[in-house]
Amino acid sequence: MRIGIVGGTGDIGEGLAHRLSHEHEIIIGSREKDKACTMSKSLTDNLAEKGVLDAKCAGATNQEAVDNGDIVILSVNYKHLESTLAGLTGFEDKIVITPVNPISKKDHFYFDPPAEGSAALEIKRLLPESSRIVAAFNNISAQKWKRLSEKLDYSVVVCSDDEDAKKTVMELVNSISELKALDGGPLEMSSVVESLTPLILNIAKYNNMKDVGIKFF
Amino acid sequence: MRIGIVGGTGDIGEGLAHRLSHEHEIIIGSREKDKACTMSKSLTDNLAEKGVLDAKCAGATNQEAVDNGDIVILSVNYKHLESTLAGLTGFEDKIVITPVNPISKKDHFYFDPPAEGSAALEIKRLLPESSRIVAAFNNISAQKWKRLSEKLDYSVVVCSDDEDAKKTVMELVNSISELKALDGGPLEMSSVVESLTPLILNIAKYNNMKDVGIKFF
Repeated sequence: MRIGIVGGTGDIGEGLAHRLSHEHEIIIGSREKDKACTMSKSLTDNLAEKGVLDAKCAGATNQEAVDNGDIVILSVNYKHLESTLAGLTGFEDKIVITPVNPISKKDHFYFDPPAEGSAALEIKRLLPESSRIVAAFNNISAQKWKRLSEKLDYSVVVCSDDEDAKKTVMELVNSISELKALDGGPLEMSSVVESLTPLILNIAKYNNMKDVGIKFF
Repeated sequence: MRIGIVGGTGDIGEGLAHRLSHEHEIIIGSREKDKACTMSKSLTDNLAEKGVLDAKCAGATNQEAVDNGDIVILSVNYKHLESTLAGLTGFEDKIVITPVNPISKKDHFYFDPPAEGSAALEIKRLLPESSRIVAAFNNISAQKWKRLSEKLDYSVVVCSDDEDAKKTVMELVNSISELKALDGGPLEMSSVVESLTPLILNIAKYNNMKDVGIKFF
């Protein structure tokens, strides 16, 4: 499967690209294509050192990541979400994964959703009606994605109104490390999944824990 | 510690009373005192059979459960919460634990909070200012509480604006089976913790799982 990552050089993009490129063709998108190409080269070299010689990864613009991905992952900080999407086209019929969490902070972190109720529901409003929005990967910390030597042994709740797209994304989730996809129901439930991230950040803060993850069992 | 359980004969009350009565004095409150006394007798007999001879458990009215508990647990379905609290007094200075979740259902379960943002925040508004509200035990299924032979090996997120009350409740949580208390921050965060319960119910439904619990690690 060809996976385009919008915002692929920042935040969780690098670890995500790395962990996906074992089994999939990755297009790392960035506002600065040079940066994406540099990251792609470093990622391919790193995998080659580990004996993975056929990794397919390319640097690209964000628009090229959308155009060439069967699946597009929006690896974008919530505050840049609307402006990033405003500058891109071609989402028709694509599976679009959102790991985006609208979070703010006072003395503690809290869920700060848009009027639609969640970032995923806002994305659904902003993108063409035929795009297939799936919320996933919301609750894994960027640090965990980056530490490639560590297993990711968490639950990943996947929410969508498109059952086929949801199934495809659940298979994608299950192809990464020890992640286990769980069907979380319709896209409306993304509000709970997104709001879990500030709770997780608070739990880490108040209990002196690091990179807290979650498991449903 | 003396723990009064309002609504102690219903829902999670029985399992909660049973598991707490190993180490604490329990007052099972009910609208029907006879029912509470019957349950208390059965619980004490059951523990005696297992060799626990000094369990202290008594049946009572809900008002007596409030009056005699150092800690009061509101084991009440959300739809009866307001009417139950309207009929009770004496919450001044008490630690009040709320495991209450405002949930509704259409094709799936969803979080259906009051205007305050969560059941815990509504309770804070309804009770005297000196009562010390703590959200805890929100995400453990009634079935799990009931099956006394099974370990409870979950995280329990505890939220409160009263740090001392929170600490006391975290110790109480840690005294039950393998439960692990986690400080979830201020009472405001109870909205996320309560909203996790419909997500858990949906995960159970959509993934053919039973009595789903949660662990943060």
